[in-house]
Amino acid sequence: MSRAALSEFALIARYLARPASGRADIVVDNGDDCAVIAPTSGHQLAISVDTSVVDVHFPAAAPPAAIGHRALAVALSDLAAMGARARWCTLALTLPEIDPDWLAGLGEGFHALAERCGCALIGGDVTRGSLSLSVTVHGELPTGSALTRAGAQVGDWIAVTGYPGRAAEGLARWQQGERDLAHPLLDAYLRPQPRLAAGEALRGLASAAIDVSDGLLADLGHLLRASGVGAQLDLEALPLATPLRATLDSDQVQRRVLAGGDDYELLVTLPPAALATAQQQLAALHLPLTPIGRIVAGEGVGGLPEAFVGLGGWDHFAERRA
Amino acid sequence: MSRAALSEFALIARYLARPASGRADIVVDNGDDCAVIAPTSGHQLAISVDTSVVDVHFPAAAPPAAIGHRALAVALSDLAAMGARARWCTLALTLPEIDPDWLAGLGEGFHALAERCGCALIGGDVTRGSLSLSVTVHGELPTGSALTRAGAQVGDWIAVTGYPGRAAEGLARWQQGERDLAHPLLDAYLRPQPRLAAGEALRGLASAAIDVSDGLLADLGHLLRASGVGAQLDLEALPLATPLRATLDSDQVQRRVLAGGDDYELLVTLPPAALATAQQQLAALHLPLTPIGRIVAGEGVGGLPEAFVGLGGWDHFAERRA
Repeated sequence: MSRAALSEFALIARYLARPASGRADIVVDNGDDCAVIAPTSGHQLAISVDTSVVDVHFPAAAPPAAIGHRALAVALSDLAAMGARARWCTLALTLPEIDPDWLAGLGEGFHALAERCGCALIGGDVTRGSLSLSVTVHGELPTGSALTRAGAQVGDWIAVTGYPGRAAEGLARWQQGERDLAHPLLDAYLRPQPRLAAGEALRGLASAAIDVSDGLLADLGHLLRASGVGAQLDLEALPLATPLRATLDSDQVQRRVLAGGDDYELLVTLPPAALATAQQQLAALHLPLTPIGRIVAGEGVGGLPEAFVGLGGWDHFAERRA
Repeated sequence: MSRAALSEFALIARYLARPASGRADIVVDNGDDCAVIAPTSGHQLAISVDTSVVDVHFPAAAPPAAIGHRALAVALSDLAAMGARARWCTLALTLPEIDPDWLAGLGEGFHALAERCGCALIGGDVTRGSLSLSVTVHGELPTGSALTRAGAQVGDWIAVTGYPGRAAEGLARWQQGERDLAHPLLDAYLRPQPRLAAGEALRGLASAAIDVSDGLLADLGHLLRASGVGAQLDLEALPLATPLRATLDSDQVQRRVLAGGDDYELLVTLPPAALATAQQQLAALHLPLTPIGRIVAGEGVGGLPEAFVGLGGWDHFAERRA
């Protein structure tokens, strides 16, 4: 790799950065050895890293703005699942070549979401290689208020935000050649919306939370194991997105909803007394919160359709991606 | 990419993680959607990300422990250059295949340095692809005490820790086939030591700081531009490592010291009254701090050897790596 190329890559890092304006919490912005930030007194920090790799997590032909949006969204979704408010992020970008138009699109998609979520890009590194984006996100939450996976109690409701399964069907449509980016299912896959406001609203109400990245059953399994409990699902209660019901038979719809990943909805457990309040809070965000079952003693998931029984309940279901 | 492979990669992430013991600041460790940490009251956070790519930043054949050590060291060095104390890090690891022995070595090298520096690995993501490691590091420093690149004043001393140039010569020897990992020059290249204790000691003394990653002149150039000043170097004063003087002619030695990168020494500026104190502080760490010139009004670097004059003073010199 030539030195000239490296300098170009260093320039790209600067090009992708945007100075955060009007943020007193950013003491030293991008461009020094480190960024320096001032955490909020009385708060703790939630930190997570997610790498998005071409042809694993997103298709190479996806619009660059969607690639930028999606790489940040999947990382922010982890903050949402802890109930944290997004604050700062870093981006490690590996690129096979420098295409200014493509990079401008990537930056647009990344920053549009970052600005909407109040998550300033405070550090970056750009290297040459196969396309991937590693995003480390930092959120804040009042001390002691983190939503973990481990707090579910027997008798709690299990509830999910929005309409999971849309992204999995969007991916299927993409793979079948659909390229209308305004299509709501394609949009659900390419531009998932991290449920940050919902996560904050559920803080103090939910007993446990996880985001649906691997699939509803897979992620429910993670939550159940962390909490040491089981679940009884009510299949009739699953929220079914209209475009899924309109085009798929009921088995296909169930499979999308239960096994499809990539939606980045929140899956939470709630003490019975907290459900109505939680639904009201999320209704104010125009986001449905649907109870789909209860936490029970033991382990594993009851109430699954025939095709899902005996497969273990989680990772086996998770479908794969780009 | 098969689902089975993905699960394996997820397992690797767990395998590389080590629970932080006895750390009250780690509220939620690895394994939930996010780690949650409790920042220290009265402190600010320094954050930086560095990606190390195979055959760009390290040779593919380097020992895995050195690859793990080095990827963390180059990131920690940015904390050192701000005067921050290392606290937490995340690792985004991309791997072409799973080799348990190699991974165990990588983890050993990474964690040995992490533990020595008090930098807990609190989050990770493992994906399949060409080998690279993106490390995001988090350090703490008392509010308002960050060492930036921008504070150098006319009349300040310019000083450097240790003996820069050793890593560049180590890389040259590696490329010539030297494989004795105990060789001090190879060790300087493969296992650079981030100058964290020195950075903390220089806080409140140095007026500006940067770490030497691209080469002494290149990084001096970054510091000068950020501070809006120039420099007059005293070539006779350059610290010359014994193994360089013993084997290279004086032109070659100068070139290694001025243009060689990868040493991760600290380059700082100091008000005249602070130099002796700073040297005493670093002597207690068994680290020399050598004055090599003064900050002057204007821009650029004076006092360069003939071969370096007219080349601009910085990026042109930076040599390339693995």
